[in-house]
Amino acid sequence: MKLSKLAGERFREKPADCIVDSHAFLIRGGYLKYVANGIFSSLLPLKRITQKIERILREEMDAIDGQEVQLPVVMPASLWQQSGRYESIGSELVRFQDRNSAPLVLGMTHEEAAVSLVREYGSSYVKYPFMVYQIQTKFRDEARPRAGLIRVREFTMKDAYSFHTSQEDLEAYYAQCHKSYERIFKRAGLPQVISVASDSGMMGGNISHEFMLLTPIGEDSIAICSDCDYRANLEAAECIVRSEREDLSKPLQKVHTPHIQTIEDLCTFLGCAKSASCKAVIYQRNTDDRYIVLFLRGDLEVNETKLTNYLGYDIHPAVITESCGLSAGYIGPVDLGGDFTVLYDRSLEGKNNLSCGANTPGYHYTGLDMQRDVANAKYHDFAKIQENGICPVCGKPTIHIFRGIEVGNIFQLGTKYTRSMHMTFIDKEGNIQYPIMGCYGIGVGRLAAAVCEAHHDSYGPIWPMSIAPWQIHLCAVRSDNPEVKACADHLYHQLQDRGVEVIYDDRSVSAGVMFSDADLLGVPYRIIVSPRNVAAGTVEILSRDRQFTETVPSETALDKICDLVRLSLQS
Amino acid sequence: MKLSKLAGERFREKPADCIVDSHAFLIRGGYLKYVANGIFSSLLPLKRITQKIERILREEMDAIDGQEVQLPVVMPASLWQQSGRYESIGSELVRFQDRNSAPLVLGMTHEEAAVSLVREYGSSYVKYPFMVYQIQTKFRDEARPRAGLIRVREFTMKDAYSFHTSQEDLEAYYAQCHKSYERIFKRAGLPQVISVASDSGMMGGNISHEFMLLTPIGEDSIAICSDCDYRANLEAAECIVRSEREDLSKPLQKVHTPHIQTIEDLCTFLGCAKSASCKAVIYQRNTDDRYIVLFLRGDLEVNETKLTNYLGYDIHPAVITESCGLSAGYIGPVDLGGDFTVLYDRSLEGKNNLSCGANTPGYHYTGLDMQRDVANAKYHDFAKIQENGICPVCGKPTIHIFRGIEVGNIFQLGTKYTRSMHMTFIDKEGNIQYPIMGCYGIGVGRLAAAVCEAHHDSYGPIWPMSIAPWQIHLCAVRSDNPEVKACADHLYHQLQDRGVEVIYDDRSVSAGVMFSDADLLGVPYRIIVSPRNVAAGTVEILSRDRQFTETVPSETALDKICDLVRLSLQS
Repeated sequence: MKLSKLAGERFREKPADCIVDSHAFLIRGGYLKYVANGIFSSLLPLKRITQKIERILREEMDAIDGQEVQLPVVMPASLWQQSGRYESIGSELVRFQDRNSAPLVLGMTHEEAAVSLVREYGSSYVKYPFMVYQIQTKFRDEARPRAGLIRVREFTMKDAYSFHTSQEDLEAYYAQCHKSYERIFKRAGLPQVISVASDSGMMGGNISHEFMLLTPIGEDSIAICSDCDYRANLEAAECIVRSEREDLSKPLQKVHTPHIQTIEDLCTFLGCAKSASCKAVIYQRNTDDRYIVLFLRGDLEVNETKLTNYLGYDIHPAVITESCGLSAGYIGPVDLGGDFTVLYDRSLEGKNNLSCGANTPGYHYTGLDMQRDVANAKYHDFAKIQENGICPVCGKPTIHIFRGIEVGNIFQLGTKYTRSMHMTFIDKEGNIQYPIMGCYGIGVGRLAAAVCEAHHDSYGPIWPMSIAPWQIHLCAVRSDNPEVKACADHLYHQLQDRGVEVIYDDRSVSAGVMFSDADLLGVPYRIIVSPRNVAAGTVEILSRDRQFTETVPSETALDKICDLVRLSLQS
Repeated sequence: MKLSKLAGERFREKPADCIVDSHAFLIRGGYLKYVANGIFSSLLPLKRITQKIERILREEMDAIDGQEVQLPVVMPASLWQQSGRYESIGSELVRFQDRNSAPLVLGMTHEEAAVSLVREYGSSYVKYPFMVYQIQTKFRDEARPRAGLIRVREFTMKDAYSFHTSQEDLEAYYAQCHKSYERIFKRAGLPQVISVASDSGMMGGNISHEFMLLTPIGEDSIAICSDCDYRANLEAAECIVRSEREDLSKPLQKVHTPHIQTIEDLCTFLGCAKSASCKAVIYQRNTDDRYIVLFLRGDLEVNETKLTNYLGYDIHPAVITESCGLSAGYIGPVDLGGDFTVLYDRSLEGKNNLSCGANTPGYHYTGLDMQRDVANAKYHDFAKIQENGICPVCGKPTIHIFRGIEVGNIFQLGTKYTRSMHMTFIDKEGNIQYPIMGCYGIGVGRLAAAVCEAHHDSYGPIWPMSIAPWQIHLCAVRSDNPEVKACADHLYHQLQDRGVEVIYDDRSVSAGVMFSDADLLGVPYRIIVSPRNVAAGTVEILSRDRQFTETVPSETALDKICDLVRLSLQS
């Protein structure tokens, strides 16, 4: 491919709307073009990268006995009604009607379609286990698309669905798939990706893992123990607190606290630690605005994912009205009137000598003893794990919080979909059973962007050989010089004959423009043919990461370049 | 791949809703599964076929300097408003809104997205010509999906868009692409596909060709001259009629014709040929129901495509009301009152001594002389070419009408999209110009179905080696026999080691079930290992088309099979 014919523009200026590097480089390098919010077109360099990623995905999915299929982008609503998700999923799911007013949806995930595909096939235990996968366009109407390919609305995803006759068999396959994912990320140039326990969210099921590339620009927060191998998405991480009951319980005492409405102000006013207070956080149920009052220790934050999972319905931060029966800023667990859903975080369990609201404007209590004053409280885990928090596995205060990009996920789904969609099989003993499912996803474009985040310098991406758009970037500096042109043309054809993927820049532009374009295309090795080189009978070989530079005689250049490519592909 | 693990069901009975063979075989063979009207999921055998077709498409597009890109499935309505197609296209175009009520469409074709992708890139003549293509999911809300993969709503299409600085350059590239299409169909196993001149329809532009597989189950009608190389879609075919004016013009005479309302009855009543009559066909404009009255020779039919193209708006067959001013069954060109759009087909030009309606219930005229009685008529070509009609090229009455499946199309688009979307380039002289476009489509699934239509017997598809789901179908007949099993297993692994794609049936089923499944999978060569063969130290090789059958010694079988595969791939 000649660079002079490559459709797409490259430019120096960082676009104003690009807040992360991969977004800026993919736009600046002519990989990607904006079409609408969260919707992009890909140009050839990105298409070549994603095709190489897709090849890796296919090889690894085939290696664990996956069968490639294709499920529809547009699905009848009836399919999603069978699983109940047509109603339960919010506006991320695009719903529309066809010319005959039949309701349709755009696929954002394909559990329903996969079950429907193999429902009859999987009617006997002898067919199990099996896994089908696809690599296909999906659309999720994200509220806030951001960061280029990191969070988009239209995306290409590899999604796989496995079917099993027992939980043990699912777990064995799940472990196999976990290994397969490790190989995929390693082959794509991200061996540093880690898996973390995650919340299963709308997918249903219990056990799930996310594969994370740790980076400050990531959207997810991850709790990692520095002393053992505990790693979990913050959303899913259990929050352990040491219950520190004081020996002497003071009496409950009402204190006049005018104009004091925050827990910070209260603790300052009383001269106590925030951990010696009980704060209230108020939500409302989305469907009917019913109030949920959650009490937790004053120094902790609410983990809304855990709260939503516990409640089983969607909530939003409350709007506290005058007539609702709650005294904003003075809400406490004692004498809380009204018909509210009241919850207690386990950070309060057994605690005494706490300060809290007295449910009367201008008054707080001191000396709250949960055992004595809120005897019927039930405690659950609703709090966010914190930096230096206690590891739920090893029990040491060695939790650290990192940011990460989720580049893949795997879920143990159980029988949520097979049960709701009436997929059954006859087991060895002749009994009718529901198959147990797993599902496994990797976003292709997001993975490409994550590789770019992990591998770039200030000039552009540094693609690993395994997914680079081309293997060699050949620069003919001063291609108006006939000898340079002849030498570069010759090398171009020789490399192509050897099956090397070459992008060849024979434009009449300055070396500066040529090299900055090459930096933006991020091809692993650059070959420079210039008047000086030609005069010396050499060519220059540079690696994109600036780690390798060598001037070699023209006659051995071809072999040397082919060796470098081969070695890079093996590593 | 072992057949025992292949997801999907195969069965003997032809499904009731399958009216064409490819549809029945793709369902019966476990290639395809119905999801909704015009929406299917593909299983592994079909996925392997379409991937091989896609590889051929990529190779041929790359060979004519195509650059693979990816345009979005979901596009903002604004893109289609720029070209005017958001308004002009009917309900085939799916329109919906996102969570913020922004109007979106599902891509059914991508001229707008392609122009938008390269609008800035193509700003100087030095970048031209260039072509971008994609292979991607599309959705067209067809009123009547039918025949399995022949006419669906969701489909995968290769669509290519070329950009040029002159009509000559477009024409040269168009010819190159025509050749590329011939290679594609030949490589996919359909060398018999022919190209025919076609109507450009909603795409705009003038010159276009469709590539047709002639088959009685085709949806299109094609006019082919048996004497020269004229070939055109019936929609686009010019209808030539010999104007036969009689020497003596009879006077116009009103005849009482009670209860005679059809042209057939009139001609019977008057004892004249249908070609000596002038009939009226009435339509209404979709937008306001205005009447269009078209007169043509009584023996001809209206070509509604030509009529619509002439009018420039959509029409439907008229509902003739009592108050509309038209006398149903008695409409004629003389004294036709009312405010109608009146058109004359050129089959009437210069004709005399015709019978026609008298615009009075119960009366017709005889002796109509178009020159004398309808002196101001303008004539255009609105009639359908007919069997034994006159060839517009060689002028002989050698036109024959065939049915065909359109497996590809190419269009010269002109500047319709670049002009409406303000894509310009600066030419050599510094002038601003609009690029001239071509576009080129092939539906991947429809091509697979067309190959199946062209290559099958009563037992199933007979796939050409180039796109067959596997190359070899290995049958271990009586796999419970340890020697059979060992021999077949050995051959399976040897073939895989040689890079041959094998589907291996080692199930404990009867030879009958095994062979009928093999017929449905349509793999070009079948290898049979049976107790009798093993005893004789041989294996049996059969071609799926029953043309080749050979029993070869076990020790030479491997080489023989590899040779057969290699030879088939080369042919």
